[in-house]
This record gives sequence, structure tokens and C-alpha cells, in this order.
Amino acid sequence: MLILGLDPGTATTGYGFVCEHDDGSLEAVAYGVISTPAGMAMPQRLQQIYRTLAELIRQYRPDGAAIEQVFFGKNVTTGITVSQARGVQLLALADANLPIREYKPSEIKQSISGYGNAQKAQLQEMVRALLDLPEIPRPDDAADALAVAITDIHSTRFERLTG
Amino acid sequence: MLILGLDPGTATTGYGFVCEHDDGSLEAVAYGVISTPAGMAMPQRLQQIYRTLAELIRQYRPDGAAIEQVFFGKNVTTGITVSQARGVQLLALADANLPIREYKPSEIKQSISGYGNAQKAQLQEMVRALLDLPEIPRPDDAADALAVAITDIHSTRFERLTG
Repeated sequence: MLILGLDPGTATTGYGFVCEHDDGSLEAVAYGVISTPAGMAMPQRLQQIYRTLAELIRQYRPDGAAIEQVFFGKNVTTGITVSQARGVQLLALADANLPIREYKPSEIKQSISGYGNAQKAQLQEMVRALLDLPEIPRPDDAADALAVAITDIHSTRFERLTG
Repeated sequence: MLILGLDPGTATTGYGFVCEHDDGSLEAVAYGVISTPAGMAMPQRLQQIYRTLAELIRQYRPDGAAIEQVFFGKNVTTGITVSQARGVQLLALADANLPIREYKPSEIKQSISGYGNAQKAQLQEMVRALLDLPEIPRPDDAADALAVAITDIHSTRFERLTG
């Protein structure tokens, strides 16, 4: 079972493919960020995000996708930009016929660390440990995306076990 | 010169194709709304918006597109939904290689009525008059989209005249 996790951002979107093996162990198959040049016009940036994500899906063929829900703080302009990027990401996932599940930031923290208000550094260390990686995955957005994928695997495992 | 105007909304997105004839007169070639069922999951709604818009562009072959900028009021959830929809609309316009211009609500009011704080009813009556239509275009979102297209024609005409 291979899950694609996404952490939508403004300039960069983190992605992470996590495989759950039959023995229950987790493996980070691939991870990174989709970046677009700051000077590029928004429609072309959205086009690049869609195309890069579609290509990653074609390459790794995940069984499902999980994406972080967005919340707005004080910076509403950032919120608009992230939501527009998230829109084309949801479109790419739908066009690939992937089942899509969404998770709140607090659900991700709870699932990874057992604590809904965990610090970023704690979460990243847990992601490293759960995926048995020698170092914390970089950049941060990629580690966050892996956390989203792990949350989805935990969540569906729980559903399978409890019927 | 045929311009596609878009007014991105939550449940419905207004669209309007306005042709500027050589004598400077304006004609509403087509207008309406792209609606998605409230019960449909968001990724599939975004897919439907993208596909319907792409089909409209294939059918009418506009020379350019204009879209209203979004601003958030108190309802942030609505803002996220509108921005996600706007993201896939910008993608459809970019995939069709259309030049895209964006206008603030105040610019649209100013351009249509000469007054940046005009009331909705005044604007709609001006849209009707400018397009020489027998009645105010319905629904409201379609009239708003026609206003965006007219604003773009006014704006580029001004740029042509002033060099």
C-alpha cells in the first residue's frame, strides 16, 4: 500500500510517498518539494504544480492520497495563494482517480506524536523514527508531507482493525 | 475581440463572453454559470469546474480572459473554497494559453458605472445597457462575469488609445 502525502504551501508544496509493508513497517519511497519561481505569474505556477504532481503520480502510482487541510491565520493573502495551489493539487489527485482523505494539522500531530500540540522538531524526529531514516527528512515541507502520509496509514489501519 | 469574464464563487462560477466589434459596440455572445452539486466531494467539484470551463473555451475560442480577484470577509471557509475553485479556473485559462488579467471588485465597479462604490443593482443595469440587452442578465453571477469582461475591454481599449 503506497500513500502520497501532500503539504500545500505558498511557494513550495511538500510531497512524500510512504509504503506500508505487509509486516506493518513503513518506508519513505520518495519525498521532496514542488517549487515554483517567485517571479512566475500565478496561472503558470499553478500549471507547473499540476503537471509536476501529475508526473509524480504517473511515476510512483500510489494507491491513495492524503492532504493537509488549510487554515488561515492573519495573512489572508497567503491563504488565498495556498488555497489556489491546493485546488489544482486536488484536481491532479482526482484526475488520477485516487481516493483522497484530508487531515487537520492537529490530527496529524496527534497521529504522529500522540499529542495534538506537539512541536515541529518533535514531529520531525518522530517522522524520522517511524520511517527508520538516518536523518530528519529535508526540507521541512517534505517532512510535513511524509507526516500526512503516515497519518493516513495510521488512520486506515485503525479503520481496518476496528472494522 | 472576444473576452471571457469569470466571477469565481463558492457553489457557482459566473462566466460571460463579450465581443467588442470594430465599431466599438459590445455584444454578449454567451453567458451563464458553472454549478456543481453541493453534495459532491470537493475534488470532483473542482474537476467538473475545470472540465466545463475548458469545454466553454474550446467552444467559443476567446482571445483573452479576465477574472475577479478574491477578497476574504468574515467567512474564511468560503474564502478557501472560492480560492480552490479559482485555482483550477486559472489553470484552465493557462492550459488554453489565454492572456489573463485580474481586476479588483472596486476596479470593476469603477469601470462599469464610473463609481467604485456602486450598488449591485446599478451595476447590473449598466451591464444590461452596455450590452444592449432587453433585460438584466440572470443569474447574478453571470451578470457579474459579463461586468468583468466589459472591464477588461474598457481597460485594454484605454491602453490602446493611450499607447
